[in-house]
Amino acid sequence: MRTVDIIGAGMIPFGKHANMPLVEMGVRAAVEAIKDAGVQPSQINIAYFANMQAGNLTKEFTTGQAVMWGAGVNKIPIFNVENACTSGASATTLAMMSIASGEYDIALVVGAEKLNVPTVDLFNASMRDVAVMEGAVVINGFAQRAVRHMYSFGTTPEQLAMVDVKNRRHASMNPLAMFYKKPVTLEEVLNAPMMADPLTKFSCCANADGAAALVLCASDVARQFTAKPVHLKASVLVSGLFDQIPDMETFEEDQRASRIAYEKAGVGPEDVDLAECHDAFTICEVMHTENLGFCPIGEGGRFVESGATSLGGKIPMNVSGGLLGKGHPLGATAVSQIVEGVRQLRGECGERQVEGAKVFLSECMGAELQGDAKTCTVNILQK
Amino acid sequence: MRTVDIIGAGMIPFGKHANMPLVEMGVRAAVEAIKDAGVQPSQINIAYFANMQAGNLTKEFTTGQAVMWGAGVNKIPIFNVENACTSGASATTLAMMSIASGEYDIALVVGAEKLNVPTVDLFNASMRDVAVMEGAVVINGFAQRAVRHMYSFGTTPEQLAMVDVKNRRHASMNPLAMFYKKPVTLEEVLNAPMMADPLTKFSCCANADGAAALVLCASDVARQFTAKPVHLKASVLVSGLFDQIPDMETFEEDQRASRIAYEKAGVGPEDVDLAECHDAFTICEVMHTENLGFCPIGEGGRFVESGATSLGGKIPMNVSGGLLGKGHPLGATAVSQIVEGVRQLRGECGERQVEGAKVFLSECMGAELQGDAKTCTVNILQK
Repeated sequence: MRTVDIIGAGMIPFGKHANMPLVEMGVRAAVEAIKDAGVQPSQINIAYFANMQAGNLTKEFTTGQAVMWGAGVNKIPIFNVENACTSGASATTLAMMSIASGEYDIALVVGAEKLNVPTVDLFNASMRDVAVMEGAVVINGFAQRAVRHMYSFGTTPEQLAMVDVKNRRHASMNPLAMFYKKPVTLEEVLNAPMMADPLTKFSCCANADGAAALVLCASDVARQFTAKPVHLKASVLVSGLFDQIPDMETFEEDQRASRIAYEKAGVGPEDVDLAECHDAFTICEVMHTENLGFCPIGEGGRFVESGATSLGGKIPMNVSGGLLGKGHPLGATAVSQIVEGVRQLRGECGERQVEGAKVFLSECMGAELQGDAKTCTVNILQK
Repeated sequence: MRTVDIIGAGMIPFGKHANMPLVEMGVRAAVEAIKDAGVQPSQINIAYFANMQAGNLTKEFTTGQAVMWGAGVNKIPIFNVENACTSGASATTLAMMSIASGEYDIALVVGAEKLNVPTVDLFNASMRDVAVMEGAVVINGFAQRAVRHMYSFGTTPEQLAMVDVKNRRHASMNPLAMFYKKPVTLEEVLNAPMMADPLTKFSCCANADGAAALVLCASDVARQFTAKPVHLKASVLVSGLFDQIPDMETFEEDQRASRIAYEKAGVGPEDVDLAECHDAFTICEVMHTENLGFCPIGEGGRFVESGATSLGGKIPMNVSGGLLGKGHPLGATAVSQIVEGVRQLRGECGERQVEGAKVFLSECMGAELQGDAKTCTVNILQK
């Protein structure tokens, strides 16, 4: 199969964009990625648009076609992809596949989401579920996992809170993050209103509007456009097991997706210089750090406390700020993770640059009510 | 690139399924297709779910994962695809691409849609558009095209109505059609309430619930499962030009998509034994018949009147009943077209069988307000 490079990346600031429609956000990110790649819109052969909630919140359909049109891209195959929080990574997997098939050379991926609309009704669907009516909303599933992690492994509420402190510190160095220049202290996190014990308000990512985009290109063509392509070594999507009662202490999907991705990329967790993960809640990052192989299962709490996952540490996690610091515009999130990877491997990240970064990994999860992954994605980039 | 066959097809009856949830409809179609293919669910490598309105109408997301789970399929990459009326064909294009890439051998495609819900608000999105507030809803765009066709080419209201009479006659022979055993007369169509002159109520397809599924397989593997694979010679998706004022007399997207598909398949319109097209309104079929190359531009009205597009004619169109006779469950429609193609090429269609059918074409269009295609798909199957 042909190998695939990323030659362009674009992203608008995440946060509240009350007056910017979904399509315009997508167009802005797409145009930046296209310019960054140095391609003409007419050279793009195929395009994917990732979004989760437009059908629900703003009643928009075939949104990708409107986004691509605004970016000067028409005629070609355009697909709208939804896979919850992993929508953007799923679109990237499809884009890589279309180039690998040999039929297309250059693919555009855009992820965008508008959550700040007059009536946000994100979890209406879940209300039909008896379990949810009893209180089992998303945060509760993760709070249960946090409690179990504390019980089984001695993880502390302070260690969980350190994830947010770290990611908000990272975000304070990222002008595109929702919480740019807005760090928080351990005390602020611990003393914030309790949402679901032990998760306080600051232990949860914030709804944001945002968009991010990538231009993927066949490696044999990429050199026409850039002297510094970033290699997309693996773009993996897996689904949950569904038929098993989940082990509360691990993310089996993380383990499975990363195993496949490491094998495809020919690297191991020890080779990864930095990673972005789906830190929708603080406990998530602790568990992702373990299940992606960066530290042993159960050690995630002590690992963050040691500073290993901070900028300058052994394996910096969510240097962009992650979902906790950057905000979480669902369909845009996983694309923005890869945008960060591209810019880190190119050495473009200023004060939050991971020096000498050569291998980047991003992980994203589309979670079920109980915190079990319906979908899980792992992408590995190499300089 | 590897060639791809279709080895399994499944479909539930289209119509009102008030008490059957969306996921259950999808599961039923998927299970039938898997059984028909003779594969085990665990042998499926990748899966695509096509749907348009679940996010809006029933607030469901990652619906494909739930459908696949119900069909015994887990762990593998599962993608939810939305491309308006062409969602199902777009998912088929992606499934073909994933097999062509060499990475996957067997792909499952499921299209499902539930429109009969307490509050159907299909075109809410459009209401934000000033043009729509002035009355330019979908049917009006097609009515304008019908008026233009009558003016330019001498097409008559009777000829338009004959499309519905024909497709309802075809549907009356299809137990899976919404209007099974419910033919209509020319007088009934012409005298039905006028919706948008010259389109009466019977000139418009009906909202339906439904689901359809396909199992695609690499040709080099297909013989393990079936002695009679149907070859998927081309699965093409194109987007609208967007930047041009549309020619009201033609569907440029039809012409472009079918040109690509004919070239890929190595056949021409003269080789096609039967076709399904997106007859959302009677005028659509008249124009599709022309723009796919089955008769000259402007001759579509006289062509249907001649009987050429009826069962037994030169190029039977919508022998399944089409959208007019079978109903139009958006995300399921384009998959169901291909299901009909598979069954016709296998000779399984009983009284509506097209004798000796070897080449089948299906066309679908995701239309804009004015009747301009945002998306257009053409699939070609060969025995």
